[in-house]
Amino acid sequence: MSKDPNLIRGRFTEATDAFVEAFTASVTFDQRLYRHDIRGSIAHCRMLGHVGVVEASEVERIVAGLQQIHKEIDDGDFDWSVGFEDVHMNIEHRLIEAIGEVGKKLHTGRSRNDQVATDMRLYLREEIDVLLYVETDLLKVLLDLAEQHTGTIMPGFTHLQAAQPVTFGHHVLAWFEMLSRDRDRLGDCRKRVNVLPLGSAALAGTTFPIDREFVAAELGFDAISTNSLDAVSDRDFAIEFCSCAAMTMMHLSRWCEELVLWTSQRFDFVTLPDRFCTGSSIMPQKKNPDVPELIRGKSGRVFGQLVALLTLMKSQPLAYNKDNQEDKEPLFDAVDTLRDCLTAMVGLVPNIEPNVDTMRAATLDGYITATDLADYLVRNSVPFRDAHRIVGQVVGYAIEHDKPLDALTLEELQAFGGDAIHENVFRSLSIEGSVAARHHLGGTAPAAVIQAIAAARRRL
Amino acid sequence: MSKDPNLIRGRFTEATDAFVEAFTASVTFDQRLYRHDIRGSIAHCRMLGHVGVVEASEVERIVAGLQQIHKEIDDGDFDWSVGFEDVHMNIEHRLIEAIGEVGKKLHTGRSRNDQVATDMRLYLREEIDVLLYVETDLLKVLLDLAEQHTGTIMPGFTHLQAAQPVTFGHHVLAWFEMLSRDRDRLGDCRKRVNVLPLGSAALAGTTFPIDREFVAAELGFDAISTNSLDAVSDRDFAIEFCSCAAMTMMHLSRWCEELVLWTSQRFDFVTLPDRFCTGSSIMPQKKNPDVPELIRGKSGRVFGQLVALLTLMKSQPLAYNKDNQEDKEPLFDAVDTLRDCLTAMVGLVPNIEPNVDTMRAATLDGYITATDLADYLVRNSVPFRDAHRIVGQVVGYAIEHDKPLDALTLEELQAFGGDAIHENVFRSLSIEGSVAARHHLGGTAPAAVIQAIAAARRRL
Amino acid sequence: MSKDPNLIRGRFTEATDAFVEAFTASVTFDQRLYRHDIRGSIAHCRMLGHVGVVEASEVERIVAGLQQIHKEIDDGDFDWSVGFEDVHMNIEHRLIEAIGEVGKKLHTGRSRNDQVATDMRLYLREEIDVLLYVETDLLKVLLDLAEQHTGTIMPGFTHLQAAQPVTFGHHVLAWFEMLSRDRDRLGDCRKRVNVLPLGSAALAGTTFPIDREFVAAELGFDAISTNSLDAVSDRDFAIEFCSCAAMTMMHLSRWCEELVLWTSQRFDFVTLPDRFCTGSSIMPQKKNPDVPELIRGKSGRVFGQLVALLTLMKSQPLAYNKDNQEDKEPLFDAVDTLRDCLTAMVGLVPNIEPNVDTMRAATLDGYITATDLADYLVRNSVPFRDAHRIVGQVVGYAIEHDKPLDALTLEELQAFGGDAIHENVFRSLSIEGSVAARHHLGGTAPAAVIQAIAAARRRL
Amino acid sequence: MSKDPNLIRGRFTEATDAFVEAFTASVTFDQRLYRHDIRGSIAHCRMLGHVGVVEASEVERIVAGLQQIHKEIDDGDFDWSVGFEDVHMNIEHRLIEAIGEVGKKLHTGRSRNDQVATDMRLYLREEIDVLLYVETDLLKVLLDLAEQHTGTIMPGFTHLQAAQPVTFGHHVLAWFEMLSRDRDRLGDCRKRVNVLPLGSAALAGTTFPIDREFVAAELGFDAISTNSLDAVSDRDFAIEFCSCAAMTMMHLSRWCEELVLWTSQRFDFVTLPDRFCTGSSIMPQKKNPDVPELIRGKSGRVFGQLVALLTLMKSQPLAYNKDNQEDKEPLFDAVDTLRDCLTAMVGLVPNIEPNVDTMRAATLDGYITATDLADYLVRNSVPFRDAHRIVGQVVGYAIEHDKPLDALTLEELQAFGGDAIHENVFRSLSIEGSVAARHHLGGTAPAAVIQAIAAARRRL
Repeated sequence: MSKDPNLIRGRFTEATDAFVEAFTASVTFDQRLYRHDIRGSIAHCRMLGHVGVVEASEVERIVAGLQQIHKEIDDGDFDWSVGFEDVHMNIEHRLIEAIGEVGKKLHTGRSRNDQVATDMRLYLREEIDVLLYVETDLLKVLLDLAEQHTGTIMPGFTHLQAAQPVTFGHHVLAWFEMLSRDRDRLGDCRKRVNVLPLGSAALAGTTFPIDREFVAAELGFDAISTNSLDAVSDRDFAIEFCSCAAMTMMHLSRWCEELVLWTSQRFDFVTLPDRFCTGSSIMPQKKNPDVPELIRGKSGRVFGQLVALLTLMKSQPLAYNKDNQEDKEPLFDAVDTLRDCLTAMVGLVPNIEPNVDTMRAATLDGYITATDLADYLVRNSVPFRDAHRIVGQVVGYAIEHDKPLDALTLEELQAFGGDAIHENVFRSLSIEGSVAARHHLGGTAPAAVIQAIAAARRRL
Repeated sequence: MSKDPNLIRGRFTEATDAFVEAFTASVTFDQRLYRHDIRGSIAHCRMLGHVGVVEASEVERIVAGLQQIHKEIDDGDFDWSVGFEDVHMNIEHRLIEAIGEVGKKLHTGRSRNDQVATDMRLYLREEIDVLLYVETDLLKVLLDLAEQHTGTIMPGFTHLQAAQPVTFGHHVLAWFEMLSRDRDRLGDCRKRVNVLPLGSAALAGTTFPIDREFVAAELGFDAISTNSLDAVSDRDFAIEFCSCAAMTMMHLSRWCEELVLWTSQRFDFVTLPDRFCTGSSIMPQKKNPDVPELIRGKSGRVFGQLVALLTLMKSQPLAYNKDNQEDKEPLFDAVDTLRDCLTAMVGLVPNIEPNVDTMRAATLDGYITATDLADYLVRNSVPFRDAHRIVGQVVGYAIEHDKPLDALTLEELQAFGGDAIHENVFRSLSIEGSVAARHHLGGTAPAAVIQAIAAARRRL
Repeated sequence: MSKDPNLIRGRFTEATDAFVEAFTASVTFDQRLYRHDIRGSIAHCRMLGHVGVVEASEVERIVAGLQQIHKEIDDGDFDWSVGFEDVHMNIEHRLIEAIGEVGKKLHTGRSRNDQVATDMRLYLREEIDVLLYVETDLLKVLLDLAEQHTGTIMPGFTHLQAAQPVTFGHHVLAWFEMLSRDRDRLGDCRKRVNVLPLGSAALAGTTFPIDREFVAAELGFDAISTNSLDAVSDRDFAIEFCSCAAMTMMHLSRWCEELVLWTSQRFDFVTLPDRFCTGSSIMPQKKNPDVPELIRGKSGRVFGQLVALLTLMKSQPLAYNKDNQEDKEPLFDAVDTLRDCLTAMVGLVPNIEPNVDTMRAATLDGYITATDLADYLVRNSVPFRDAHRIVGQVVGYAIEHDKPLDALTLEELQAFGGDAIHENVFRSLSIEGSVAARHHLGGTAPAAVIQAIAAARRRL
Repeated sequence: MSKDPNLIRGRFTEATDAFVEAFTASVTFDQRLYRHDIRGSIAHCRMLGHVGVVEASEVERIVAGLQQIHKEIDDGDFDWSVGFEDVHMNIEHRLIEAIGEVGKKLHTGRSRNDQVATDMRLYLREEIDVLLYVETDLLKVLLDLAEQHTGTIMPGFTHLQAAQPVTFGHHVLAWFEMLSRDRDRLGDCRKRVNVLPLGSAALAGTTFPIDREFVAAELGFDAISTNSLDAVSDRDFAIEFCSCAAMTMMHLSRWCEELVLWTSQRFDFVTLPDRFCTGSSIMPQKKNPDVPELIRGKSGRVFGQLVALLTLMKSQPLAYNKDNQEDKEPLFDAVDTLRDCLTAMVGLVPNIEPNVDTMRAATLDGYITATDLADYLVRNSVPFRDAHRIVGQVVGYAIEHDKPLDALTLEELQAFGGDAIHENVFRSLSIEGSVAARHHLGGTAPAAVIQAIAAARRRL
């Protein structure tokens, strides 16, 4: 179906080439904006009525026509045509077809440039609200999981080497913190998304006596763009969203890396339910942590969309250029990917079952309370750097004799630490003692974790 | 529809969650590999027959079944199911349904890990061949365009400032050179794509007496992977392709930037046919160079896919991980985008109509033959650095008196250059003289451009 | 000089290889953190005194030692050694050398993991404050420039095609809006930077009775990290900053693209002072807009640093890993690049001299008031879509007869628009009339621009 | 020191601003090109003599002057000045200072545009040759390591789950394959680097009778650029190199991820020498795999440089723009990073000490020969899909009874597999049997690995 020349090709003498028509059309992907497009058109039309550019009865007919089209699309009864290029022209063309001449008045005082920017912002605001909701859900299930394990001890790692004992609840709260920042950041992003560009028209504003406050109020925008050239070409909101999404996906890649490690037989720290795993087409014994792996992999996808949008805007002169049509698919994909991954985690997190005994056994392996011994020495007046050196020698001795630290005798310990070491040293060398001693704000002690959970619940 | 537990979930006690099933499934996008999947399966099956693992009559039935499925899919009669996860399991399940028990033998001695790697390589090889073909077409139309304009003079720019006169044919050949390197690079990439991974099975090879040379010959692979762990996890071929595609898109963004500049009223160097342009929904006079703008914008998309794939593979331990399922959409999108953009350029290039008079007029504006004056002085024994300084002063004088260089009198010129300047200086100051003097290999002179075109034709 | 084994290699039996020592050392680039490192150490030490872990007299000696070292480094009298790996160990080693045994107490209750995170946040907070200051400066000079040109008319472009007349002041305000969002975003980023990680120690907190509020107050942090595992491995603040920086550099690339276009002879819209330009080594007439070009190019650099940091963190398990040492150079470079580019623009903007006559002449060229004619028809009861079509035909006629719109006679216009067109149409066809009519919030009319400037000044 | 106005600012009336001078100067980083710059200048000068543009005696004096400057720089006796902007002008200015007027003739017939492109290609060619050498070294030590462990059995992983037994030698060969592709790719890249741009002058070639073949022969270039506009603006060679470097860094990130996993106490598969590890400033027992972690982290850096360069070139019109000055630091950093990381690996690989017993024990854990059991059933006429299902049930049973597969009795096995299972099944269930059975090209069997090593040695 060829594009109706009536609508926008008045000065052209040649029809669009079929390949070019398909190549430049966006309707195959921007039709997902139809709800926002119609909502924006209704608000625009009501404003035109409000200021007297269109008569009240015309407004009624246009709004009714748009609502009918909304229903047609909802019901799958709408015939999208590449010939009409994009979601806007498809709907406008159908409007004129449906309600006649009066439909030709809808586009008064606006342009597709400010229209699409409005649609995109309505769309993204809605998606951000969904995401904030899902993120809050995920934060809650993280707190629930942490709460069940404030006293579950596992090795804390740095450099993936056993470093100091920590509690599993504390570890889960680290994930909570990451996502909590993400939610804050997304909230900040929303402020800059929720600004009305409509009224900027093509690039310079319009000669009609528009009332932008009216439109903003109709559509729930917090603010109104204050420069028309900027407003039609600005895609910062999409880029900022993708930055937020990339950060969250990076966080999820870290959690998922840990889940993949922890479900491997070498760690065996947690068990995931079968339904988050898949089997192998060839190895019958396999239970693969597919969901975490896939989320980890999807981080690249969202990083890529961020790069796509930054590159897109690089060096673009004002105002709107056709390049900007390329903003949609990256943004849509980043939104969908982030929402799906968060949703998957909301389902997964409550089903993470720590293998408490295995974790504890792993904590006993290695010399994980060496720092506690050094701290002990400090409390007995050895300067920290000397204490650190002394414990290094103790560990060397223990490795050589293949003993854990708490299996050394008092005499053996005193051979290195002298009279700074007493019988009570063994309390410091236990993993429970080590953990409990770190009870300050942010520390891993069960008491501190319980407090952190309570504080986090208040923040939600 | 739920996934058939018979196929790969023998050890599981719990069905896959519906969301998880959809989240982890790839069939919605990997079904585009069905031709390659079936082709690979047929070759694998024939090999199993060849080495005696499957009987000849069974091979016949399996191959016939696969061919029937191929036709069903071609005809749109195939019922893809997310429940069967991917293109491979959908086809295998249908095969068993169609031909019965014997279909269960197809997957002998292979895994989805080596199967999908084989499919991807077959797919990409085919697409590369198409791309090489389109690139060659585009190189040809560039040569044709250059050939028509070996003597058309335009300003050559550096820093977008008029620098020296060049020929339009020479400028078009600069585009030719970029794309010519792209084609070479894609050819090098193809060598590394066209390697058979099948036979690597899940990760370690197989216990069946497979004949990999047989399969390679059936499928037209030039080489056979030599390490199974590597072969099932290697996605270098996709990344290298995206690198090539990103480079080409960068080149196209440069050409398109120039086309956008040149079609603007400020330059007006070229006219594009209406069918490569679109109008405005609000400004009736507009004729926008949509196709070049869109291609320029699509560069970001392909850069993003490259970043997605590099990120995907970062830090992945051997061998296959589910993350790798995320290799497909970025690769498919890079392939499609590159092919569409090149195709659009094949249509566009022959229709670029230079506005010869405007270009020539723009060349006369400015002091574009200043370098020629400096060179003239050098030929009359002034050291280059002094000549450069003298001409700088001449230009300053000319600007002050608002005259072009060739409107200065001999006396005025001699006031700066002394007796190094004679009557014949004016030949050097003409744009035709300037251009013609650069007749060496790579130079802009019509004679050099004609030779360059002839040499380029020989290379194609 | 080899690394002092006393400090941290107590358990090792083998010295670090010289290449490995240099490869893993960070002191060559992290020495720029010395002010923040010392400031953090002093606060930490005072806190240790405050809670009684170190005696008051010892605190005094340590603080004095640190202040002396600060001075040594300021004065260039400090001997940095790769053998001591990083800024922290260089300073601690020197401290012990300078003040003796008591220096060994400084590192009590902390780790390099929380120390470096604290240093980085202090550094970045300081740099953000500088950047906010420079951005405010730049916003001010933009307003000043806009204010001088509220009535200067130029062509507004979409697709780089003349679209509608705008005012130069309005265009400059579009730049203002972009940067204004950047400043807001950076302010939001600062909130998440200004959080104290110290007290997290290696990963789990410490066994000493630390007072984190004390340290936060000493160092001016607004908040305290609430999870030690997260705090030592979190680099979100650096990534968020790079996202902000990338956005700003993208904006600058757009402004600079316009400056490069506008200074080219084809546009000749603005003149830049010589000192922001450079000459050519070979073409004596050249005056190249080097500063805008270079800034445009530097956008890639900052995009790259953002990608570097996202990639760095992808898939990193908790808690600190050595990978994180790679956070510094990208962040430093992004900070420096952004600050330099903004500073360059602060110098450049007030010196942009619009060539008012050339701009005006360019506005008259083309059919730039076609939208105004369509709007005129709408005001005379022609539905917009019909008006758009009619004007398209008028433009086609005008092109054919090589006349500007306002040179058409009333009769010619009426031949297309019928009795909807009257004598007063010519007011709408003038560029002054076109501009003045767009006087709503965000519009390009001088009156609207004056209001926008006033509102912007209030925001600053 | 201010820039000498004599050299290139003849037409300017205003000195460069000090900040602008520093901002636009490149000498702080491009001075590293001095050897290549001088080498190129000498070749250019000899060519000028050869074609008679400069006299033989002048050539001698210029060459001698350049050689003297080379020595001055080598010896640290050269006074680099930001006032002279870049390496080229610093050297040319010093040349004139050193040898007088004749030095002013050197820049005849060339421009900094083709000069810097030549320098960059000479530099990169040299670095590629070093890299190819280091890569070959690394390939050799990988083969040596593999050769020592053709029979060492470890678990092969997919999804980080134990999948099938493999040999450690086979695993090391997977690394070999990755790097081997990298080396091939770098060789292909070198072909496109080693092309002479000199002779393109500023953008259009030169009016002097240059002999480009002469220069190419002097400088060892394989080919000569064939379009001057392209040659001065082309940075494909730098981007292609960064693509190659990014791929290699991605590979190294994968190896290093494995080394980090394998050195963790949970795996304990390998031991690294102390000198590739570092300690903790607080935890005395730690031995951190710093070198692998750092290399893993550095992957982001090189990905970032690739993005920087692609972004840099996006949308740049022909020919040279100042943006291109930004090509150097990303390229230099990518080269240095890649060379350092490869060098580190050359030192590290021979010192990887597999903990053979731990690896073997890990292989026995899990149901790693389940595929072998399925293959066994297939060989006894069970279709593969049925065999896969049966073994899934066997594994379920074994998990339930907490037994390894080879501890099941024949009766237990037959309860699932019926009379397809005989006494000889246990041979298939041993890890040695499993490994040995995969003896085809690319398989993990010791015999196959020995053959693969031999073939690889022939390729080197």
